[in-house]
Amino acid sequence: MKYGIAYFPSKQIQDEVNSYRKRYDSHYALIPPHLTLKESFTADDAEIESLIPELKKIANETDPFNITINKVSSFAPISNTIYLKINPSPELQTLFDKLHSGKFSDDADHPFVPHITLAQDLVDQEYSDVFGSLKMKKYDLGDEVDRFQLLYQLDNGSWTVYETFVFGKEFV
Amino acid sequence: MKYGIAYFPSKQIQDEVNSYRKRYDSHYALIPPHLTLKESFTADDAEIESLIPELKKIANETDPFNITINKVSSFAPISNTIYLKINPSPELQTLFDKLHSGKFSDDADHPFVPHITLAQDLVDQEYSDVFGSLKMKKYDLGDEVDRFQLLYQLDNGSWTVYETFVFGKEFV
Repeated sequence: MKYGIAYFPSKQIQDEVNSYRKRYDSHYALIPPHLTLKESFTADDAEIESLIPELKKIANETDPFNITINKVSSFAPISNTIYLKINPSPELQTLFDKLHSGKFSDDADHPFVPHITLAQDLVDQEYSDVFGSLKMKKYDLGDEVDRFQLLYQLDNGSWTVYETFVFGKEFV
Repeated sequence: MKYGIAYFPSKQIQDEVNSYRKRYDSHYALIPPHLTLKESFTADDAEIESLIPELKKIANETDPFNITINKVSSFAPISNTIYLKINPSPELQTLFDKLHSGKFSDDADHPFVPHITLAQDLVDQEYSDVFGSLKMKKYDLGDEVDRFQLLYQLDNGSWTVYETFVFGKEFV
């Protein structure tokens, strides 16, 4: 099965993000607004069961930390994806690093750019219009990260949560 | 916020169910295929934080158990909802009862009819056609329930998982 690891931000941020995703994100119906911590990877049941104690250990080692968001950015010209940019956070980078080392495959193709997607798969003209208007906006959003989620992908492309890992609260 | 408690069946069952939901379920994009264990209820942050140790305790008291599915049924004439009927299970009933007593509001309007929705909000003619064809089918599906999920509802009606409770694995 295909698995991924993500953080769902506060309801306030998810609602704000969904107001854009509804119109502009081809994945709107597949997963709630999220910050990807580990891109989709393939594992069988035995592999996942062996990773779960590691995920619990990582969660227990991590203290809740804050993230802040002040602007919209884009992955152009690589892709037309528009996103809320999470400001650099050493705690977030450390969490990402732990999920890409040791027992975890280091399958990160590129440096970690923490983000919450607002729009993707737009045609060029629509991308330019949407990004042109969003990049002028100032945001002042904050959230406390205190957990992450292991999800698996269904045949229709949507994601179901398999398990939540709450910082400092897991039974190892 | 509005919360609910549900179980997501195996990927195999979710994929099977989604093949119908895609065409016939108005909630297809709002939540993965699920068995509702507690209907939506309202709670503030403090109330939820006080319920979480209870949910962990219930999860730790519960042993994984099997459910089986052999047929499709419907809530007509109350509603046009068509669903996979979960065969009676004392373990499932016990779990439901624990989520509706003690610290939990006993807000169940009607007896527990464990089910996984396939179709809802169909117009009468479509309902008759779909149910007429599905009620003839025999199913032989089984699954092991070993966890449940606490979810909250976003403004767009979709549900995000807040926390997973795995039987026998929670740190209380």
